[in-house]
Amino acid sequence: MTPEPTEEGTPVTHPLLDLAPLTADHFAAIERRVAALLATGQDVVIMQGEALLPLEGCIRGAAHPGSTALNVVTGPYGQTFGNWLRDCGAHVVDLEVPFHTAVTAEQIDRALTDHPEIDFVSLVHAEAATGNTNPVAEIGEVVRRHGALFMLDAVASVAAEPLRVDDWGVDLCVIGAQKAMGGPAGASAVSVSARAWERIAANPNAPRRSYLSLLDWKERWIDGGRKALLHAPAQLEMLALEACVERIESEGLTAVMARHASAAAATRAGALALGGGLAPYVHEAADAAPVATTLRTPDGVDAGALVAAALAADPSLPLIAGGGALASTMIRVNHYGVDATRGAVQSSLAALGAALGERGVAVDLEAARRAVSETW
Amino acid sequence: MTPEPTEEGTPVTHPLLDLAPLTADHFAAIERRVAALLATGQDVVIMQGEALLPLEGCIRGAAHPGSTALNVVTGPYGQTFGNWLRDCGAHVVDLEVPFHTAVTAEQIDRALTDHPEIDFVSLVHAEAATGNTNPVAEIGEVVRRHGALFMLDAVASVAAEPLRVDDWGVDLCVIGAQKAMGGPAGASAVSVSARAWERIAANPNAPRRSYLSLLDWKERWIDGGRKALLHAPAQLEMLALEACVERIESEGLTAVMARHASAAAATRAGALALGGGLAPYVHEAADAAPVATTLRTPDGVDAGALVAAALAADPSLPLIAGGGALASTMIRVNHYGVDATRGAVQSSLAALGAALGERGVAVDLEAARRAVSETW
Amino acid sequence: MTPEPTEEGTPVTHPLLDLAPLTADHFAAIERRVAALLATGQDVVIMQGEALLPLEGCIRGAAHPGSTALNVVTGPYGQTFGNWLRDCGAHVVDLEVPFHTAVTAEQIDRALTDHPEIDFVSLVHAEAATGNTNPVAEIGEVVRRHGALFMLDAVASVAAEPLRVDDWGVDLCVIGAQKAMGGPAGASAVSVSARAWERIAANPNAPRRSYLSLLDWKERWIDGGRKALLHAPAQLEMLALEACVERIESEGLTAVMARHASAAAATRAGALALGGGLAPYVHEAADAAPVATTLRTPDGVDAGALVAAALAADPSLPLIAGGGALASTMIRVNHYGVDATRGAVQSSLAALGAALGERGVAVDLEAARRAVSETW
Amino acid sequence: MTPEPTEEGTPVTHPLLDLAPLTADHFAAIERRVAALLATGQDVVIMQGEALLPLEGCIRGAAHPGSTALNVVTGPYGQTFGNWLRDCGAHVVDLEVPFHTAVTAEQIDRALTDHPEIDFVSLVHAEAATGNTNPVAEIGEVVRRHGALFMLDAVASVAAEPLRVDDWGVDLCVIGAQKAMGGPAGASAVSVSARAWERIAANPNAPRRSYLSLLDWKERWIDGGRKALLHAPAQLEMLALEACVERIESEGLTAVMARHASAAAATRAGALALGGGLAPYVHEAADAAPVATTLRTPDGVDAGALVAAALAADPSLPLIAGGGALASTMIRVNHYGVDATRGAVQSSLAALGAALGERGVAVDLEAARRAVSETW
Repeated sequence: MTPEPTEEGTPVTHPLLDLAPLTADHFAAIERRVAALLATGQDVVIMQGEALLPLEGCIRGAAHPGSTALNVVTGPYGQTFGNWLRDCGAHVVDLEVPFHTAVTAEQIDRALTDHPEIDFVSLVHAEAATGNTNPVAEIGEVVRRHGALFMLDAVASVAAEPLRVDDWGVDLCVIGAQKAMGGPAGASAVSVSARAWERIAANPNAPRRSYLSLLDWKERWIDGGRKALLHAPAQLEMLALEACVERIESEGLTAVMARHASAAAATRAGALALGGGLAPYVHEAADAAPVATTLRTPDGVDAGALVAAALAADPSLPLIAGGGALASTMIRVNHYGVDATRGAVQSSLAALGAALGERGVAVDLEAARRAVSETW
Repeated sequence: MTPEPTEEGTPVTHPLLDLAPLTADHFAAIERRVAALLATGQDVVIMQGEALLPLEGCIRGAAHPGSTALNVVTGPYGQTFGNWLRDCGAHVVDLEVPFHTAVTAEQIDRALTDHPEIDFVSLVHAEAATGNTNPVAEIGEVVRRHGALFMLDAVASVAAEPLRVDDWGVDLCVIGAQKAMGGPAGASAVSVSARAWERIAANPNAPRRSYLSLLDWKERWIDGGRKALLHAPAQLEMLALEACVERIESEGLTAVMARHASAAAATRAGALALGGGLAPYVHEAADAAPVATTLRTPDGVDAGALVAAALAADPSLPLIAGGGALASTMIRVNHYGVDATRGAVQSSLAALGAALGERGVAVDLEAARRAVSETW
Repeated sequence: MTPEPTEEGTPVTHPLLDLAPLTADHFAAIERRVAALLATGQDVVIMQGEALLPLEGCIRGAAHPGSTALNVVTGPYGQTFGNWLRDCGAHVVDLEVPFHTAVTAEQIDRALTDHPEIDFVSLVHAEAATGNTNPVAEIGEVVRRHGALFMLDAVASVAAEPLRVDDWGVDLCVIGAQKAMGGPAGASAVSVSARAWERIAANPNAPRRSYLSLLDWKERWIDGGRKALLHAPAQLEMLALEACVERIESEGLTAVMARHASAAAATRAGALALGGGLAPYVHEAADAAPVATTLRTPDGVDAGALVAAALAADPSLPLIAGGGALASTMIRVNHYGVDATRGAVQSSLAALGAALGERGVAVDLEAARRAVSETW
Repeated sequence: MTPEPTEEGTPVTHPLLDLAPLTADHFAAIERRVAALLATGQDVVIMQGEALLPLEGCIRGAAHPGSTALNVVTGPYGQTFGNWLRDCGAHVVDLEVPFHTAVTAEQIDRALTDHPEIDFVSLVHAEAATGNTNPVAEIGEVVRRHGALFMLDAVASVAAEPLRVDDWGVDLCVIGAQKAMGGPAGASAVSVSARAWERIAANPNAPRRSYLSLLDWKERWIDGGRKALLHAPAQLEMLALEACVERIESEGLTAVMARHASAAAATRAGALALGGGLAPYVHEAADAAPVATTLRTPDGVDAGALVAAALAADPSLPLIAGGGALASTMIRVNHYGVDATRGAVQSSLAALGAALGERGVAVDLEAARRAVSETW
C-alpha cells in the first residue's frame, strides 16, 4: 500500500518519546492491579521513584518525637530505617537478629511486651543482602495484638513468596518491581491502612507538599477521586510496571513464586553438594529468602576475590560479594526475575566451583549440577 | 534463515522489561550530555524523579534558620518555593511581580540593596503557567555582585530559549525534560556550583541519606568517581532523557529554540489578529515565554468554558485554562515539544476563535490564520 | 535499594534490541487474536511484510493459465491486481466502476452470469485512495452462488467497518494493521478457506519455497502443528500487531468502528457545510469509506496546490491530493487510527477552508465547524 | 510541575504504536549507515523482510533460461539457492564441498575454467549451520577474473568477520541483522553493483512490481532520488536496525569482530580441552565461522539427546543439534550477538560436559574452563 506522505521538518520519531500522556484513569488502573498483587483492599499509592522513596516517606510520615519504634534489623536496611526514625526524633528500640537467621514472632512479642510504649514496628520481609526471610504472617498477628503500626519492606519478597497485606495486618507495605517482579526500579508502591493514614495525618512533622509526602497523595489524589496527578509521572516506568504485572498475571503469580522457591532450594542444595566448605549462610532453609542465597566462603578464601574470578569468566552471572563487614566472607547468588531459572543457578554454581578449584579447594562440580537438577 | 529454537518456559518478552542494567558509565555519559545543554562545567546531578524533586532538594539543602532568601514570585512556583524556604526556617523576602510582566534586574538589585542580609535568591526562568520569562543574564550579574547564592528553575526554558549556567553565574539550575526538550518527566537534573556545594555541606539541616539529598549524590556518586549509583535508577526515563538530548543535538539546539520562539511570536500575532478582545496576558512580547502564551479572555467570557468548548471540538489541542485566581480569565496556549509547530498554533487559535464565535464574539479567523503564517 | 553491580563490557542496552525471541506459541496466539478480529474460523497466516506481500501471494497462488478472474476495479489497487493476474497467465475480466461510487452485487452477478468460466473474484473492500467502500456481504453471497473463489483486500476496512469473513464467504481476506487498527505496517495477515487451500495446492505455478508462498506456511507451519516458524520473524512488528489488537479489544471493536464512522460522517457534513464548491467525491454517503473522505475541488482550484497550502499551515494534517488522473481535482482527508478524532477532522476542514479563502473562494468556516460537531 | 490535563477518550498509549512515520530521508540515512558497514559505495537496498527475501530477489532477478550458475554448496542454504536457480530455468553447476571445510579459490577457479559459460556464482560467506567460513577475498578475485556475477550471502558473517564488498568485487551482497549485528530479523539489506543492475534490468523474467523485486527499488526509489518509499515500511524493524548499527559504531566494528573471533577460538579450545571425544566438526580453525562452532559428538552419543540434556539444565543456552543428516552427530554452539561473550561460551561447554558425564563419558570440565579463559 502506498505510504502516506511524510512531512519534512517533523522531528525524528523514537519509541520512548512523544507518547500520549498517561491519563489519571490509566494511572489508577495500574494502582488497582498492584493492589491485587498485594492482596489488599487498602489504598495503594504509586510513588515516582525507587522504593527508598516510599520507605522514607512512610517513616518520616509516621515517626515523630514522643513515639517509640521497634526497628527489627535483619539486614542492612534495618540500619537505614533506624537512622530515619532517630532523625525524626522517635525513640528507637533496635531488635538486632543475627543475619544467618530470621526473627521470630516470639522475639517481637517479647520486645513489645517489654516496651509497651512501642507504637511502630518496621520490618524487612525478605533480605536480598543477607538472604533471609521473616515470618510476617505470625509477626503481623503479634504486632496487631499490641496495637502498634506495622511497616513492612516487601521489595525483595513481592512475587517471590506469599504476601498478604490485609490478612497479615500490614499497615504500610512498600514494594518495588525490580526484583522478583522483573520490572522497573523507577516507580514503587506502598499500601496504606486507614490506621496509618490517621497516624500520619495527626503527625505535624509528616512531610507535606514534599516529594516525600504520602499525605499529598492522600489529600490531592485519592480524596480528589483520583482525577488529577500531583505532577507529571515517570510514564515509561509506569508502563513497564504495568507490563510486568501483566506478565505475572499471565504466567500466574503462583507459578512465579514457585519458580523463585525452586531457585532458592536448588541453589542451597547445589552449594551443599559442591562441597569444599561453601556453606549456606542462613542456617535453616525455612529462613532463606527466595530471591537470593547467601553463602559463607571456606576459611582462607576471600569472597570478593572468588566472585571476581567467577565474574571474570562470565560477567553476566548474578553473583555479588557481601557488603560491609561481610565483604570478605559472604557470597550472594541472586536468583530473581529472569535469573530465577535453572540455567542461571547452574551457571552460578559452576563458576563458583571452578573458581574454588583454581584456588586448590576440592569441589564436586558434577554433584552440584545433579543436585540442582534434582531439587528444581 | 531458520529461526533459532525457542525454549518453552521462557518468559514472554517485552520491549520495556529485562533490559541490561544501565551502567554507571552510561549514567555519567548522560549527565555530561545534559551539562553541555546547560553550557556548564559544574557538577550536574540527575535525580530520579520529577523536577520538583531537585527543586525541593536545592531549597532544603541551602535554606536554614538564620539565612535570608529573596524569593521572586512571577508565577505559581514562587509560592511553592516560599513555602519550602519558610519550612526550613529561613527568613523570606518575597518579591512579587505582576504576572503580566517580567521581573527586572533593577528590582532585584533594589531588593538586595535594601536587604544586604539576603544570601539566597530563587527565580523561575520561564513560567509556563503565566507565560512570562525573566532576564536571567542580567539578574545573574546582579545576584553575583551581591554575593547571594542563585537558584534558577529552568524547567520551562531549557531548549526553548538560551540558558547559559556558567556565563550567568547560576549556582543551582534545575531542569526537566518534559517541556521544550520533548522528553520524559521522570528524571530531572540540577547543576551545582562549587559555592553551592560548600553552602549545602555546611548546612546541618540539609537532607542527608534521603531521597531529597543532593549531598548524597555529591559524596557517594561524584566524589566516588561516579563508579556506583546510589540506587537502581529509573532506567527507561534515563534512556528517554538520552534519546531526547540526542534528538536535540541532531535537530540542533539553535533550531529547536528558534522553533519555540516562532511558536510564541506566531501565537501572539495570531491572537491579536483574531480580535474579539482576546489579549496577550503578558504585555511586552520580550517578556513572553517561548513555551506557552497566556491570553486574557474578553469581558464576560469565562476562560474555563471557552477552553472546554475548544477541547470538545478537539481534545488533543494544547489548551488549558489558567489556574487559581486566573481560572476564569486566562487561557494558556502551550507550544512546546511536538506542539511547537505551526499546525498546532493554527489549530489552537482556530478552535479558540470558533468557540468565541459561538459565544457571539466577532472574530476574524482568517486574519488570525494569516498572521500565524506570516509571523512564523 | 542498592543497585546490582554492572559489568564493564556489557553492550549498551536498547529497548528494541536483544529481546528474547518470539516463541512459536506466542506467534500462534497472535494469529488467533487476528482471526477473532476477522470473525473467522479459517486458517489465518501472518506474513512478515507489508500487505502487498500476502495480496501478491494470494493472486500468484490462485491464478494460472486457464483460469478466468473477475477483477473489480474501484480504485488503484484493482489495476495492480489485474497486472498480477495477467502476469500469472489468467484471463482477466475487468469490471471497472467509476470511483465515485461502489460496485453493486447486481453488477457482479451480471458479470458472473455473462462469464460462467470465471473462477476467481478479486475485490477491494474499502478504498482509501478513492474513498469508497463496497457491499461485501451481498457480493459474497453472489460469488459463492456462482462458485468462484473470492479474494478480498480488507486493509482499509478492518476495524473501520464490519468485516465478517466466514459469514460473507470470503476465501482469501488480506489485512494490514496500519490504517484503522492503528498498528504496524510490517506484518500482515490473510485468512485462507479450505477451498482456497485446495485451489492453491492444485496450482503447479503457485509459489513454493518462496517468500511469496502461502503454501509454505500451510505445509510447514500449520500442518506441522504451528511448532516451528519458517524463518525468524519481524518480532517488533509482531509485538506491535499484538499491542494494537489488544488496544482494539480494550476500547471495543464496536467503539473503534463507530469512531471511524463518525469521522467519515462528520467530514462529509463539514465539507458540505463549508461550501465554496468542495464536494464529496463519492456521491452516496452509504458508499463512502470510513477511513478516508475524498473531496472534489471547486472548478479552477488545483488540488495539489490547495493541499500544499493547507499543509504549509500545518504539516501534520492528514491531507493528501489524489493520485494519478485525480491529482489536480481530488483531495483526500484521511481519518483512521489516531486521526479518527473530532479534532483531526475539524483541523483538516479548517485548513482546507482557509486555503480556499486565500484563493478567493467564499467558504463558511463556522458552519463547517458546527456541522462537524453536530454530526459526530 | 503540574501535569498537563489529559483528555478522556484518548487511546491508551504504547511505545510500539502511533510513532510518527519514518521519513524517506531517515530511511535513506539508515541505508547509508548499512553501506558503510559493508565498505561499499554501491547502491544498498533495504528490503522489508527476512534475509531470505533479498536472497530470493537476487537469484530470481539475475537467473534465467540460458544462464549458467556456479552454486557453491557449503551448507544448507546452497541447496535453497540451487532450487531457486533451477526454478528460474538456469543451468546449475553445483560445487559441493564437505561441510567440515571451506571451499578454496582454486576449486572455484577450476570450476569456472571447466565451465566458461558460467555467468553467475552464488556463495555463502559463513555458515552458521555447519560452522565453516569461506575465503571470500580470494574467491572474489577469481570470479571477477572470469567475469561472472558474484552473489554473496553474508548474513552470518557481517559484523563477525571482515566484509569488504567493493574491495572483493561482490556484485550482490545480502545481509541480515539478526546474528552478529545483534539486531532485528525483519529488515534486510542487499548491495547491488552497477553490473548487477544491468544484468537484472536485462532479464525479462526478473520480478517487477513484486514484493520480490529489486528492480522496483531501483526504478522507483533510487532513480527517483529516494523521495518516496514503495510502501509503508516495517518501521520498528528499521529503527531497531538503526539502533544496532549505532551500537556497533559505538562499540567499534573491529571490537565487535574481535569479540566474535575470541568466542570461536575459545569454544574450539574449550571443546578440545574438555575431551571425551567431542571434536570440532570443521577441521581447520582457519575455516571455522566466528558465529557458531560445530562439534561432532563422540561415537554412540546422540547429538539431539545431548543437547536436550544440556538445555534441560539451562534452556537459555545457545545450543542446537545439527539439522538434516547431521541431526544425530552434530552439535552447534552459537556465539553471536549477546552470546559472543566468555560467559556464554563457558556455560555452553560446562553444560555439554556435564551432559556427557551423565552418559558415562569422561570429560575434564576444569580443563575446558581454563582453556576458554586462556584463549579468550
